[in-house]
Amino acid sequence: MSNLFTRLEELYPEMVEIRRYLHQYPELSFEEEHTPAYIADYHRQLGHDVRTDVGGRGVTAVLRGENPGPVIALRADFDALPIQENTGLPFASKVDGIMHACGHDGHTAYLLVLAKALQEEKHNLSGTIVFIHQHAEEYAPGGAIEMIRDGCLEGVDVIFGTHLWATVPYGTVQYCEGPMMAASDRFHITIRGKGGHGAQPHLTKDAIVLGSQVVTSLQQIVSRRLDPLHSGVLSVGSFEAVNAFNVIADSAKLTGTTRCFDENVRDVFEEEIGKIVHGICEAAGAEADYEYLRGYPPVDNHHQEARFIAECAKKTESVQNTEYMSPSMAGEDYAHYLQHVKGTYFFTGAGHPDWETTYPHHHSKFDIDERAMLTAAQVIGRAVLEYPGASS
Amino acid sequence: MSNLFTRLEELYPEMVEIRRYLHQYPELSFEEEHTPAYIADYHRQLGHDVRTDVGGRGVTAVLRGENPGPVIALRADFDALPIQENTGLPFASKVDGIMHACGHDGHTAYLLVLAKALQEEKHNLSGTIVFIHQHAEEYAPGGAIEMIRDGCLEGVDVIFGTHLWATVPYGTVQYCEGPMMAASDRFHITIRGKGGHGAQPHLTKDAIVLGSQVVTSLQQIVSRRLDPLHSGVLSVGSFEAVNAFNVIADSAKLTGTTRCFDENVRDVFEEEIGKIVHGICEAAGAEADYEYLRGYPPVDNHHQEARFIAECAKKTESVQNTEYMSPSMAGEDYAHYLQHVKGTYFFTGAGHPDWETTYPHHHSKFDIDERAMLTAAQVIGRAVLEYPGASS
Amino acid sequence: MSNLFTRLEELYPEMVEIRRYLHQYPELSFEEEHTPAYIADYHRQLGHDVRTDVGGRGVTAVLRGENPGPVIALRADFDALPIQENTGLPFASKVDGIMHACGHDGHTAYLLVLAKALQEEKHNLSGTIVFIHQHAEEYAPGGAIEMIRDGCLEGVDVIFGTHLWATVPYGTVQYCEGPMMAASDRFHITIRGKGGHGAQPHLTKDAIVLGSQVVTSLQQIVSRRLDPLHSGVLSVGSFEAVNAFNVIADSAKLTGTTRCFDENVRDVFEEEIGKIVHGICEAAGAEADYEYLRGYPPVDNHHQEARFIAECAKKTESVQNTEYMSPSMAGEDYAHYLQHVKGTYFFTGAGHPDWETTYPHHHSKFDIDERAMLTAAQVIGRAVLEYPGASS
Amino acid sequence: MSNLFTRLEELYPEMVEIRRYLHQYPELSFEEEHTPAYIADYHRQLGHDVRTDVGGRGVTAVLRGENPGPVIALRADFDALPIQENTGLPFASKVDGIMHACGHDGHTAYLLVLAKALQEEKHNLSGTIVFIHQHAEEYAPGGAIEMIRDGCLEGVDVIFGTHLWATVPYGTVQYCEGPMMAASDRFHITIRGKGGHGAQPHLTKDAIVLGSQVVTSLQQIVSRRLDPLHSGVLSVGSFEAVNAFNVIADSAKLTGTTRCFDENVRDVFEEEIGKIVHGICEAAGAEADYEYLRGYPPVDNHHQEARFIAECAKKTESVQNTEYMSPSMAGEDYAHYLQHVKGTYFFTGAGHPDWETTYPHHHSKFDIDERAMLTAAQVIGRAVLEYPGASS
Repeated sequence: MSNLFTRLEELYPEMVEIRRYLHQYPELSFEEEHTPAYIADYHRQLGHDVRTDVGGRGVTAVLRGENPGPVIALRADFDALPIQENTGLPFASKVDGIMHACGHDGHTAYLLVLAKALQEEKHNLSGTIVFIHQHAEEYAPGGAIEMIRDGCLEGVDVIFGTHLWATVPYGTVQYCEGPMMAASDRFHITIRGKGGHGAQPHLTKDAIVLGSQVVTSLQQIVSRRLDPLHSGVLSVGSFEAVNAFNVIADSAKLTGTTRCFDENVRDVFEEEIGKIVHGICEAAGAEADYEYLRGYPPVDNHHQEARFIAECAKKTESVQNTEYMSPSMAGEDYAHYLQHVKGTYFFTGAGHPDWETTYPHHHSKFDIDERAMLTAAQVIGRAVLEYPGASS
Repeated sequence: MSNLFTRLEELYPEMVEIRRYLHQYPELSFEEEHTPAYIADYHRQLGHDVRTDVGGRGVTAVLRGENPGPVIALRADFDALPIQENTGLPFASKVDGIMHACGHDGHTAYLLVLAKALQEEKHNLSGTIVFIHQHAEEYAPGGAIEMIRDGCLEGVDVIFGTHLWATVPYGTVQYCEGPMMAASDRFHITIRGKGGHGAQPHLTKDAIVLGSQVVTSLQQIVSRRLDPLHSGVLSVGSFEAVNAFNVIADSAKLTGTTRCFDENVRDVFEEEIGKIVHGICEAAGAEADYEYLRGYPPVDNHHQEARFIAECAKKTESVQNTEYMSPSMAGEDYAHYLQHVKGTYFFTGAGHPDWETTYPHHHSKFDIDERAMLTAAQVIGRAVLEYPGASS
Repeated sequence: MSNLFTRLEELYPEMVEIRRYLHQYPELSFEEEHTPAYIADYHRQLGHDVRTDVGGRGVTAVLRGENPGPVIALRADFDALPIQENTGLPFASKVDGIMHACGHDGHTAYLLVLAKALQEEKHNLSGTIVFIHQHAEEYAPGGAIEMIRDGCLEGVDVIFGTHLWATVPYGTVQYCEGPMMAASDRFHITIRGKGGHGAQPHLTKDAIVLGSQVVTSLQQIVSRRLDPLHSGVLSVGSFEAVNAFNVIADSAKLTGTTRCFDENVRDVFEEEIGKIVHGICEAAGAEADYEYLRGYPPVDNHHQEARFIAECAKKTESVQNTEYMSPSMAGEDYAHYLQHVKGTYFFTGAGHPDWETTYPHHHSKFDIDERAMLTAAQVIGRAVLEYPGASS
Repeated sequence: MSNLFTRLEELYPEMVEIRRYLHQYPELSFEEEHTPAYIADYHRQLGHDVRTDVGGRGVTAVLRGENPGPVIALRADFDALPIQENTGLPFASKVDGIMHACGHDGHTAYLLVLAKALQEEKHNLSGTIVFIHQHAEEYAPGGAIEMIRDGCLEGVDVIFGTHLWATVPYGTVQYCEGPMMAASDRFHITIRGKGGHGAQPHLTKDAIVLGSQVVTSLQQIVSRRLDPLHSGVLSVGSFEAVNAFNVIADSAKLTGTTRCFDENVRDVFEEEIGKIVHGICEAAGAEADYEYLRGYPPVDNHHQEARFIAECAKKTESVQNTEYMSPSMAGEDYAHYLQHVKGTYFFTGAGHPDWETTYPHHHSKFDIDERAMLTAAQVIGRAVLEYPGASS
């Protein structure tokens, strides 16, 4: 069985090569063309059953072990972000304004190479591996919903996936039972007041004053209307009412996000934002448009699978440290898979020990310690081999 | 005619005596007993036609001149305030917690003595003088409405009155055409939230947070909803939500006042307060009671009478300075008389030149320069004699 | 060993009797006289070593088992609350305005009777039992600090305690590893503005407006300045600025509480409240006094002892349901003991299945299902007998 | 003397022609080239002493009457606005994005033609007329300051000017003693918080929340810190913090205007805005830049000249209605002239009786009733002839 791990080490340079290649040709969510073709091609060469255009631009590939056993899905995402890369790396993005600033290039690279190594171990495999290469993770509603609708989880017993995480040091694996990553929703508010001359407030309904009241009142949702034992965040990221200095604003646009780990809390957010917006506007005889758009649900790991992956990590040589993590307020559309089958998600530390500054995900200087790809492949590879009923 | 003025100077000690006597026995608005009896008695001794219990506790007295002429009303108020006197004066209030802290004792004293002096001049008088001694000026709805309803202005052609004003120096008379003193209204808001334990905000509707939002939002009425060319004030004087530290308040009571010089502005205040209170409570699913009580209307002096009284003041020896004043935000129920007959109100400076500190009206150390009573009697006395058609 | 449990059942009527007796004679925190005397007397009759006036008004009693073993402390609190009882019970409080509205009467009753039963089992006991009867749990700084300072934990290896909890049904025991009850602090803010007449805001610094701004701004501490993964609550329970309607308030007093499970969060609360109060007052040229008083720290259960007590509960016949609980935002000065020795606290369900309405703790109609006393005695009795090294 | 008025009527078509010509070629403040050249040329052809580039781009022309007398200045402004005209008029602006949307074309036209008519009456004139054609009225600091510094008021005894005012109907002239148009200032605030991810508020200082607090707190300046008897307006016209929905804003830019009629009130605005901005930022550990830029002072008409112009208006046949106006909250840099010499400004009604909708000044559909130019010339022409000592 240790053949797999030896092969992964031998194949590490290929992971690096693939990752750096993909890094140079990033593609935006829902606009991926080159990347899924590249992935499909790779799997075809391994002899896997490949489906493309799954749920849009996703790719699935199936490797059937020679012995009967469970159906295990492994998922990696492959889209990039609308960010102008500023790393100065020799393999930096060649596409203006688009960058793999979240490590999805590394996700794809380790999974492809793991697929190759598992293919070689086919005779030892009990069960089936479904490789789910997902498009559009970065942009809600994401690719997962449509891939699932298009059947990517059919027959699947369990799913595993990981995120290379730059702000966790290389050598550490983080796992969590239950809620691990937050539900992440978006809202849009347009205050429709009545504009006018800055010297005649009584003839207007000042949209900037009303928008400001809305912002300060929205603070009460977290401070007063959520159960303090339930985490929740509400941030207004944008306030747009840009005019000449001597007018009174006709309208103001507020846009923001909420995060939480509980579907009920999402309901509270959606309802209470609406009540505040409408109450405050009514108090001034103004009107408002309000829209609450649900993004990804919380990533809610299954307890048994989470503990199982922790065991796999502990047995992995390149992992010095397997730790229980606090939930992250980031969102992930991996959440959708866990609503259909059991499984878990985890973080593979990808911060390089020698970096002076570690840039966070979505930063124009974001990078990963590439060795983390090997770690990911090792932990997930072990999970495949050791999942109850999976190995010969 | 100068007999009147000589007599007033001679009778000045009596004014002082009466004022000091009344000062010791102050009575609250709508509870006056002793004071109106004293007044009625004084006029009876002068032989005037006296009516008591006019519109409640008011007193009127009529002096008929021997020649035909206009009917001139002179008005003085006689109620006191629920304030514990702290002047240390030898003639300080003997009634616990009640004080003549607005000078109504002086108003009554000068008018009684002026009545005596005019009585002596009866043969020179053309026309009729109606002395209106009003109760309950300090507490809306005030005594004026009911005294008018009870006929105190019947047949009256013109009315004059003055306020001894401590923050204007002795020797100065202030007059104003048009709006001189503000409409003064009152409002009561009770936020009805839902109380609970301080650690469980999500089960409550925090009345203190809502009350605080209401207070900050009410600032917008003056800043945004009034025509900036129209003066207006809104003050919340009381915020009452007194509880243990570790609860969330069930309710909060806000009480306040508005001031303005224009009936339309009162309408804006009444409507906009309601909209703000209900909009903010609705935004939180709470409820509120709201009541807006109209107090006195603005004192709106008639232009010709205002200029006439200024002329009288200029001819008065004890007046060094007759000046046009800015309107005062204080309210006065004298306003009601001017809605029925022409006339004017004015301020007689009563600040003593030697005082280091002049305490404002309604202060527990309030006092007047008593000489202002003589000035008031002189100006009003001259107005009686010189009002067109009034003197022989 | 089952003798103990048989005896507890036999002695149950005595628990009820003691509880009802104490219920009629409640005493306020730091003013207890009768209750500690009663407790001391009871233990003396059992032959225990009794100390009174421990750390003020506390009582400790020591029962030495006949075999060597660990020193186990058991703690019950005995003070009552300034609440007028409104239950209509035949054994309702006979003291006006004071009530055992938190179940401390039941705590004392079960522990005394358990002491009697354990005394009878003395020959089977390995180790020593220290009964800690604590005064003043309801009022910070509480009695625990001084009792500890006075030596009540000397030689103690482990401590157990429970709260009879009316909002958890009878038959359920709730336990929790780590933070179980919140740190509970108090703060006092006095805004010192400048009062004046309601019509002259420009001469004042309106303390009600400033206080309202402070309240609304304080919402930002939880919504913006705490890590959303750390629970925290801030409630302003009292806003006191009670004046006439037509003034502008000179000062406003705000009082409130904070709750959290983390010492760092307390620091954030203390610092950020101060910054907000002073920033807002400075913006208006006003001043403020601010005081942050630390109450009880979080009750932070030791993991091993928490799991041990859960095992004891599961073995207890009257316990149908042993469940892991979410932390409670209530505070408890039991927290202090756990900062010195290992141990745990837990909730014993005391809500009667037949009640239509269950009144919460500190309510004037609060009551308990008295059978919960027997459950408490059973679980804690088992803990004494089964604690590693404790039983023969 | 009536020759002048006959001639003005005869020359009315020329006014219209000039106005329509200028209307097609508007120029922005401080960028005027063609217009001042046109004006200078016109006066030169009349034989006046012409100075160009006065204080930048202004033009002055001097007409010396044949008899001695006072020096009377007449001022008209000639700049246009950055507005895309939308009137559909045959003589609409030919310059993209620039429009005479405030009537300065009409001001220039009537004054040029009045200059021609007065030139013809030269022999009847006692004294000297200085025509002040001012550039850059629309954009603070305006052209007046520099023209005055460059000597345009040297020797001038009195100044007159008028604004054609579309929201006052043709046939009406409005005048006012004392403050007539407001001081108009501008302020810029940049909140400098600390940006971050929308899910991690505790690592940021949310500039949108702080900006919103500033906006709501600024309402207190008018509601609490100004004397309610002094008019004042503060409007935040622009709130700019435009970002992605899922971030926390690093900075927010607020821009606004204040209006008042009193230099002291400007001081209050400047100081109190600063205190609020800095207090609120300090409360959050953030920083802010704040700049208060004084624009035009209040237009403060001299009483005697204001009454004089009212008399001139009353004698003018085309004026049906001469009325005392409430002050306007608009600003005018004519204010500067009145700080140096006596004089007055007034409004000449320019709203056409047949319009269904009257568009306000600075609107893309703004227009004037051109007959108002003749009225302006008639009133100002009469003022020149009848000013004490001016006519023969």
